[in-house]
Amino acid sequence: MDPVKEMTQIGQQARQAARHLVRASGTAKNAALSAMAQGLIQHSASLQQENEKDLRAGQEKGLSAAMLDRLTLTPSRIEAMAEGIHQVVALEDPVGAITEMKPRPNGLLIGRMRVPLGVIGIIYESRPNVTADAAALAVKSGNAVILRGGSEAIHSNRAIVSILVAGLQTAQLPRNAVQFVNTTDRAAVGALLRLDRYVDVIIPRGGKSLIQRVIAESHIPVIKHLDGICHTYVDEDANLDMAVALTLNGKMQRTGVCNATETLLVHTAMAANFLPVVGQKLTEKGCSLRCCPEALPYLAPLGGVLATEEDWDTEYLDAILSIRVVATMEAAMDHIQTHGSQHTDVIVTQNHERAMRFLKEVDSSSVMVNASSRFSDGFEYGLGAEMGISTDKLHVRGPVGLEGLTTLKYIVLGTGQTRG
Amino acid sequence: MDPVKEMTQIGQQARQAARHLVRASGTAKNAALSAMAQGLIQHSASLQQENEKDLRAGQEKGLSAAMLDRLTLTPSRIEAMAEGIHQVVALEDPVGAITEMKPRPNGLLIGRMRVPLGVIGIIYESRPNVTADAAALAVKSGNAVILRGGSEAIHSNRAIVSILVAGLQTAQLPRNAVQFVNTTDRAAVGALLRLDRYVDVIIPRGGKSLIQRVIAESHIPVIKHLDGICHTYVDEDANLDMAVALTLNGKMQRTGVCNATETLLVHTAMAANFLPVVGQKLTEKGCSLRCCPEALPYLAPLGGVLATEEDWDTEYLDAILSIRVVATMEAAMDHIQTHGSQHTDVIVTQNHERAMRFLKEVDSSSVMVNASSRFSDGFEYGLGAEMGISTDKLHVRGPVGLEGLTTLKYIVLGTGQTRG
Repeated sequence: MDPVKEMTQIGQQARQAARHLVRASGTAKNAALSAMAQGLIQHSASLQQENEKDLRAGQEKGLSAAMLDRLTLTPSRIEAMAEGIHQVVALEDPVGAITEMKPRPNGLLIGRMRVPLGVIGIIYESRPNVTADAAALAVKSGNAVILRGGSEAIHSNRAIVSILVAGLQTAQLPRNAVQFVNTTDRAAVGALLRLDRYVDVIIPRGGKSLIQRVIAESHIPVIKHLDGICHTYVDEDANLDMAVALTLNGKMQRTGVCNATETLLVHTAMAANFLPVVGQKLTEKGCSLRCCPEALPYLAPLGGVLATEEDWDTEYLDAILSIRVVATMEAAMDHIQTHGSQHTDVIVTQNHERAMRFLKEVDSSSVMVNASSRFSDGFEYGLGAEMGISTDKLHVRGPVGLEGLTTLKYIVLGTGQTRG
Repeated sequence: MDPVKEMTQIGQQARQAARHLVRASGTAKNAALSAMAQGLIQHSASLQQENEKDLRAGQEKGLSAAMLDRLTLTPSRIEAMAEGIHQVVALEDPVGAITEMKPRPNGLLIGRMRVPLGVIGIIYESRPNVTADAAALAVKSGNAVILRGGSEAIHSNRAIVSILVAGLQTAQLPRNAVQFVNTTDRAAVGALLRLDRYVDVIIPRGGKSLIQRVIAESHIPVIKHLDGICHTYVDEDANLDMAVALTLNGKMQRTGVCNATETLLVHTAMAANFLPVVGQKLTEKGCSLRCCPEALPYLAPLGGVLATEEDWDTEYLDAILSIRVVATMEAAMDHIQTHGSQHTDVIVTQNHERAMRFLKEVDSSSVMVNASSRFSDGFEYGLGAEMGISTDKLHVRGPVGLEGLTTLKYIVLGTGQTRG
């Protein structure tokens, strides 16, 4: 079938389903989600069989061991998927909440109602658990979802989606509330990105090249997650032990993730005491150090090398840290504004006034005082789950949970008022 | 000067100014705004002289009388501009508010802080009062603004901006917080729309062709206002007198505006009693009627004609009303979903259950029960002023006031927590 025709049909069906979902009760949505979670557990064996097909194809295609690992569905990973859905069940239904309802002098009552966005298109790669996570969040927030997974997981995704759809049907919700683009034709992505008549928002999840393609081609608003070049700034009034712990945790607790610290900024007054200590611990854990000329003397004995200009703009996603000594907090904030990606930035300080200034002036989706940058995610923030982390400024910044998948419309209750 | 270079410089200056504005106190911002309002009154005579140049050029160019009228600055219009700024002064400063600050089990305090978007680009046509309104809203919400007005108002806009900048300087705020693109070169707009490195959002205000150009060319997120195809649906349980009053007011109180009712939907049970009465009053006021086959027999005697399919998709902005009889409220909602523009839609009914369903299910920026569609604007909603009305779903829907020019970032306060 022609991808444009196929995607148009999927879009129309999604829009139709969204109109039903907007009036679905929280009970019905939760019943569907619970049935989905149960279904995943029940069909664990057949899911693994389908997953086997993807793994064999992946091996033939020569996927890396890391890629194959991310693709693998084990019984415990399937349980984790189901558990993730149960967590979404436990969240409050955001839809229909009415806030700020206030009377105007003419007697009109005016406020806002939280409503679903409508239809969400998700374009993602690799890990099949995204299929279940994304669908659960979308349905709970009253949205229909169109899922376009990567070709390497097509059998696993198909099998998961058929279980999700059965869950919708158990709760008498429209089956087209969760649709899967059942083709690996790349033209289908292009066609999806042009469905602005039926799709309200596109959320890409995956590598930089995927996200850049989506941004370039989409006729639909995109909630996107670009780089995470996160900074930890150690202020002149930092507690030294805390600064060491937060730097180590921010950089090395897990390196291949967007909220890992990539650049350490150190106030010049702290350099002599702090850098040798933190450098020692970092190198013990296998971290390479790329240093500015002022930091280098302290770290060259530990194998530190001179950083290039490019280092400050690089998301390593690896056991590498760039390190710069700065003369003031203002210089640190200048560096963050020039080189950061507005994801997550941390100040370590005991000084209240500078903590408050840093919080207010650093223009990132998450700004932290005395905490590890690694905390920047939906689960840690208590959102229960996340659709990704937005590095946009409009609509939603940071972890995207149920609220980020909704919008507010004005509602006006009158008794026949006319405008004079 | 090359427009790309010029716009890049303006963009850099705006970004720099935004960094100062984010930490400006509400007092300083209000002082600047008050000085701007005073300045407009003080320089009323010279403003009118500059405005004269635009009017003469407009006459030579053969602008319509309506266009020339919108362009004209009279003493009372200048007072109204100043009064508009005073109203913005009176609004609460949204910046810095911290909400939902909650402790997590690990002791982290996590919540959100309202912050400016940063740099706002406004591209607008004709009415010079937009210059003052937009600048006041932007500065109050802590944003730097780049103003690109229409060539027909260049002398007036230049004069207004120089007064606004003097106001900034009075309050020791950066003069580049308000910048005006001082060229009529169309290439400057293209260059502005590519400044994604320095500009956070573009707000176009003007006709459809301007907005479509901006959407097509912008590399920056756009908050846009497209058509206002607003509906008033008269339910089977409507109060007949109220339905007549709301239809008349919605359509005829002012016709050239986006929140005027363009289509009247009438439940079939109301047609015989309601249509002749409302038709009579509408035609008395000079309104033409375009009717569906079921409505036509009631309205043909009053000059009503048969509507074409195109009528349902048309924003008349004129004394014309399309009228369709529907069998059910669901059919009315189907019509609104198919032909509406998600701006403002009204139900007239005494039935509570249908009122609530209409509120919940109609997917528009404003949904009203028993009120005139004409109320859909920022001033009427108590926002004090508006930057326009968003027909987007993401970020902000409906009238865009101070809140729509801000965003929420996560803030995390720790005591040295690391992730396990």
